This record gives sequence, structure tokens and C-alpha cells, in this order.
Amino acid sequence: MAAAPSTPLLKDELDIVIPTIRNLDFLEMWRPFFQPYHLIIVQDGDPTKVIKVPEGFDYELYNRNDVNRILGPKASCISFKDSACRCFGYMVSKKKYIYTIDDDCFVAKDPSGKDINALEQHIKNLLSPSTPFFFNTLYDPYREGADFVRGYPFSLREGAPTAVSHGLWLNIPDYDAPTQLVKPLERNNRYVDAVLTIPKGTLFPMCGMNLAFDRELIGPAMYFGLMGDGQPIGRYDDMWAGWCTKVITDHLSLGIKTGLPYIWHSKASNPFVNLKKEYNGIFWQEELIPFFQSVTLSKEATTVQKCYLELAKQVKAKLGKVDGYFNKLADAMVTWIEAWDELNPPKGAITTTNSPAVKSK
Amino acid sequence: MAAAPSTPLLKDELDIVIPTIRNLDFLEMWRPFFQPYHLIIVQDGDPTKVIKVPEGFDYELYNRNDVNRILGPKASCISFKDSACRCFGYMVSKKKYIYTIDDDCFVAKDPSGKDINALEQHIKNLLSPSTPFFFNTLYDPYREGADFVRGYPFSLREGAPTAVSHGLWLNIPDYDAPTQLVKPLERNNRYVDAVLTIPKGTLFPMCGMNLAFDRELIGPAMYFGLMGDGQPIGRYDDMWAGWCTKVITDHLSLGIKTGLPYIWHSKASNPFVNLKKEYNGIFWQEELIPFFQSVTLSKEATTVQKCYLELAKQVKAKLGKVDGYFNKLADAMVTWIEAWDELNPPKGAITTTNSPAVKSK
Repeated sequence: MAAAPSTPLLKDELDIVIPTIRNLDFLEMWRPFFQPYHLIIVQDGDPTKVIKVPEGFDYELYNRNDVNRILGPKASCISFKDSACRCFGYMVSKKKYIYTIDDDCFVAKDPSGKDINALEQHIKNLLSPSTPFFFNTLYDPYREGADFVRGYPFSLREGAPTAVSHGLWLNIPDYDAPTQLVKPLERNNRYVDAVLTIPKGTLFPMCGMNLAFDRELIGPAMYFGLMGDGQPIGRYDDMWAGWCTKVITDHLSLGIKTGLPYIWHSKASNPFVNLKKEYNGIFWQEELIPFFQSVTLSKEATTVQKCYLELAKQVKAKLGKVDGYFNKLADAMVTWIEAWDELNPPKGAITTTNSPAVKSK
Repeated sequence: MAAAPSTPLLKDELDIVIPTIRNLDFLEMWRPFFQPYHLIIVQDGDPTKVIKVPEGFDYELYNRNDVNRILGPKASCISFKDSACRCFGYMVSKKKYIYTIDDDCFVAKDPSGKDINALEQHIKNLLSPSTPFFFNTLYDPYREGADFVRGYPFSLREGAPTAVSHGLWLNIPDYDAPTQLVKPLERNNRYVDAVLTIPKGTLFPMCGMNLAFDRELIGPAMYFGLMGDGQPIGRYDDMWAGWCTKVITDHLSLGIKTGLPYIWHSKASNPFVNLKKEYNGIFWQEELIPFFQSVTLSKEATTVQKCYLELAKQVKAKLGKVDGYFNKLADAMVTWIEAWDELNPPKGAITTTNSPAVKSK
């Protein structure tokens, strides 16, 4: 197993957020890379169940009772029985950066057979600029051995701050239920050695399995919506967050990168169960994409919060007629921002402590 | 050396266009892949010089005297002493597809050590659809072992016809003179195993070194401009063609792919000479990019020719004030379309033959 870097990057500035319903044995494999960091575990489902975390990790764990206690009536914006609950972890973090990973994701190997330190690559992605305004054909120009190619305007070579780093998956690809059903045996074996910026004006399907972002730049847009228990839809939590985030990063001239790092995605979820969760989304996304492609934010929307509230308003106005669910979602978006601002007051204001039920050390 | 496929793809539907000033010894290395195809060689510079083509290739060769004879006064739109002259070859071709390659480009090897059949990969790129309307995080969804990921709207999965396949370069990267000067030793050793679509609304720097396109879909936009002898600019021929082409493919809902295949680019051109050719372009591109980013074509522009003539008009109106050169270029764009239509009359019309000076067989 590869050794972690001697001084882990951003050790005190990054939280790892993990939504789970089971013991976190998967962390054993990540120990060399994750142990220096603080974990925020969001326990989904039955709060009386005890989740075991391997020895030696520094963590805090929140279950549904904690969510309800900390947010009060605003807890309604946090999904239950769906990994969308992870966004609660983004909200209670006090760090600048978040990395979130699913508990069925393991350490992948690069083509030379070396273990991939996914977190280190995400941090590199976040700490170097993005290039959303013009495409560079040699991909990330800030990477060693690469640069901007001929014809790339010099005025654009400083790039834009990177808000999001979207990592990929070897083995089980992130397919929807119909594709899973049609191609049950398809595996992703292709290691594409590239990081690239999703251009401005282009939407993409953001997967929450292996994702890092800058909380200060974009945190309040990373709301994973209303999914799971009591909702007519599942498995669109990260998609929703991705579309909202992309519209807002475009508006604020921030960048989103995709590509490296890979993790090893071990288990395909059940396609029949997934179809039940997804079928409304499969219809609705045909209306959602044109909506997000054409939505515009005003000049007054100068913060992520302001952008997000404008977006919520337009969701209600334009998507409410697609299904009543979107009225509820638009309200939850507003609640989310209220809760975010309550837990993350402007610097200098008095801060409350959100003590979790379980804490290591 | 790898064997060529037993039945070469599109054998009678594709011409290989090569601009050159020297003997074409580089074709020896390409023999297994190129020999089944017809070559159009555009000889630049002194027309009395004899260019040697290795035995066994099927080719026609045009020198400046041929260009002048065939186009008459319209020959003014074809550059001299610049590889931009290659676009004459696109015009005289009668085939549906074009592949163009520089004579300092050799066969590259993939990571397994196998020779890359660049032409075969370009053809695969051109014969499968593009995805300009939404980004797929696993890159080309039509490639074996890949598909559209979760959250990709089903209505967009048919994609768009592919007009252009832009291939890349191992060894010497395609850098501008300032970058060449700063990083004289940088080599591109990274083999990125991906093909992707440049999203709609995003411009990119199109390099003419290793490029394929569908003449019927986009040919008349592939004008490489006025460069070289008597012009205040060089090395922007392919960039100009790329920006015009991208705007027009976006308008016509066609796709452009970039990525595989790689060729081995052997020689870095002289950065001092390049700087002299490029310096006006380096200034001007700062105005050109915003122009191309904001240009719109009318609903009446339903063919590539109509789009291109509208673009020429706007070049004159908006870029003429940047430099008088753009007035000349706008006129040349119109001349180019007139010459294209003369040599490529609508199907059913009487066709003239453009006999080259030199022809094999």
C-alpha cells in the first residue's frame, strides 16, 4: 500500500463527510490516506443502531435525532433514508473544504498498480485554477507536463478559482437503472489520465460518490434536495446539487473540474429498486435540463446564498407546474439556506456549537 | 508494425490532404495505414521544385501554378508560403471525408507499445455521434465499455452528427512561441485514453496537424484564412478555421470531438520565427475570442455556406476596426465560398475536372 504524504495537505482545513447505514469497515482500506483528517459521519435510517468506526479515526457522528435536535423544524430540509442526508455534514462542518465519499467505494489502483490517493488528487484539483471560459485540448494546463496550447488567449490563462472537483469510478460505473438493466455486466476499466474543466454554460451529471468542494466558495449550493422517505424520487440528490451548483458557479465565474481521481466502486445497487426511485426523475429531468440551461441569475446575486434563493424562486415559478413536488423542494431550498446561515453565521458573530451524539477521542 | 485493417474503412470516401515543401519520406512510416487511400498533396512555395512521393501511393499533387490555373483570380484566397494552403486540397477533393496531417507527424505508439492507426480512430470518431448538448463524465458514451451516466437526459442520447475529429500529439506539444521559449524542453508524454465532445457554446483551439472532418457537413467552413506571404500573421490558420467552424457547428447542431488519436509530432518549429508570425495574432485573439463567443447567426443560415457568408459580414463589421487585415480576410472568406461552390456545384450540375500537374498512376 502506498504511503500517505508525510505532511497531509490541508489536514486542518478539510472534513471528510460519509453518509452511511452500516459499520464503516471500508475505512480500513483508506486508513493511510484518511486517518490524518477529521470525519463527519451522517448516520441514515434507524438512529438507535450503533455504527462502528474503526479505531484511530478522528470523527463526529450525527444520527437523525441529532439532525432534529440541531435544526429543529428546519430539519425538514434534510432527507431521510437516502444518502442525500450527507449534506447535513456539509452544513455542520467548520472547515474550508469537504470531501465526500460513499461507503462502498474503495482505493483504486492506477495503471502502474499503485494505490490512488484520491483525496490528495482532489486537493490538487481544488488548489489549482479551472479554465471554464475556453477549452484546452491538452486538458488541465496547470498539471505538470502540460500547459495552454497555441491559440489559447493569454488573458484567460489565470483561470478561475476551482469550486468543485468531481472524481470518477473504476469497476461499477454510475449508470441509471435502465442502463444497469440493459448492461448488467458492464464495468469501467478505462483509466483516463485527465482532469478537465466543465466549460461555462455546460451542464453535467454530478455524482456524489467521490466529490470534493470548497465550502467557502460554493457550500450553500451543495444541497442534496428532498429524496428518499416520503418523497416521490430518489437517486437525483447529487444531480440536483450538480445542476444548481453549475448554474451558480457559472454565474459567479468559478470552475468545476472532472476526471481524476478514480475510486473503486465495489457494489452495483439493485437496478429494480433504483428504477422505482428514479422513474419520476427520468421523466422530470427532460424538463429540468432545459430549465437549468436557460435559467439566469440577476446582477444582485453576488453570493452563493443570494444565487440559491433566486434559483429556488424560479424552481417554484417554472417547475411547480411539472409536479407539486417542486414547490415542496423550492421551499426546502429556502429552509436549507436559513439553516446554513444559522449554523454558519457571518465571521465575527457568536457561534453556537453543534455537539454530535457520538464523537471520537 | 501493426497491420492495417483488412478492409480499410471508407477507402473510397476519404482523401488525405498533406501540405508540404519537401519530399514526403514521412509517408513510409504511414504506409500500412495510408496506402489504401487517395492523397491530395498541396505543394507550398516554389512550384518548380519536384516533391518526391514514395512509390505505391495513389496521389494527386497541386502546386501554386495549379492553384492559380484552377481558381484564376479567386486563387487570391489561398495562402502562399504557409501551411494554410492545405485548404485548397479540401476544395478540390470530391470525397465525403478529409483527413489532414503535417509532414513532420509520425506514427505514435499507445501505452501497450502498439502503433496507433490514427486514421482509423478518426473515422470511428466521425462515424459515431457527438454529445454537444450535455457533458458525459465517462467521455464518449458510444465507445465500447462506456455509456451515458446516471442523470444524462434520455432525449439527448441520440447525440448529434459529428462534423470534426480533432486529434492530439505526443512528444512536441502544440505550443505558441512564448510558451515554446519558456519551456523549450517540455514534451507531451501523457496518453489520455479519451475522446470527448467540445460542448456547445465553448470555443477551442483547433490544430490542423492531425485533423479529420466531414466535408459534406462542414467543408466550406474549413477555410484556413490568409496567412504567410504578404500577410501580417501566420500560425493562426487552423485557429481561425476552428473558431469559425465551432460557431457554425453549434448553430447547425453538429458536433466536434477532440482527444484520440495521437500522432508523434517530431520537430518543434523555431520559436523565434514563430513569434514573428504570431505576435499580431497574440494581440488580436484577445478581441477575436469575445467576437466568436458572442456572434450569432440568423435562422436563415441553414447551410454552411450561408453561415459562413454571414460570419464574413460580421468579421468585416466588427473586426475591421481591430485591423484592416480583417477587411481583407472577410473578402477572402467570400471569395473562398465562391471558389468552393464553383468547384463543388450542387449535385446534378455539370462538373468540371481540376486536373493537377502531377498525378500518380
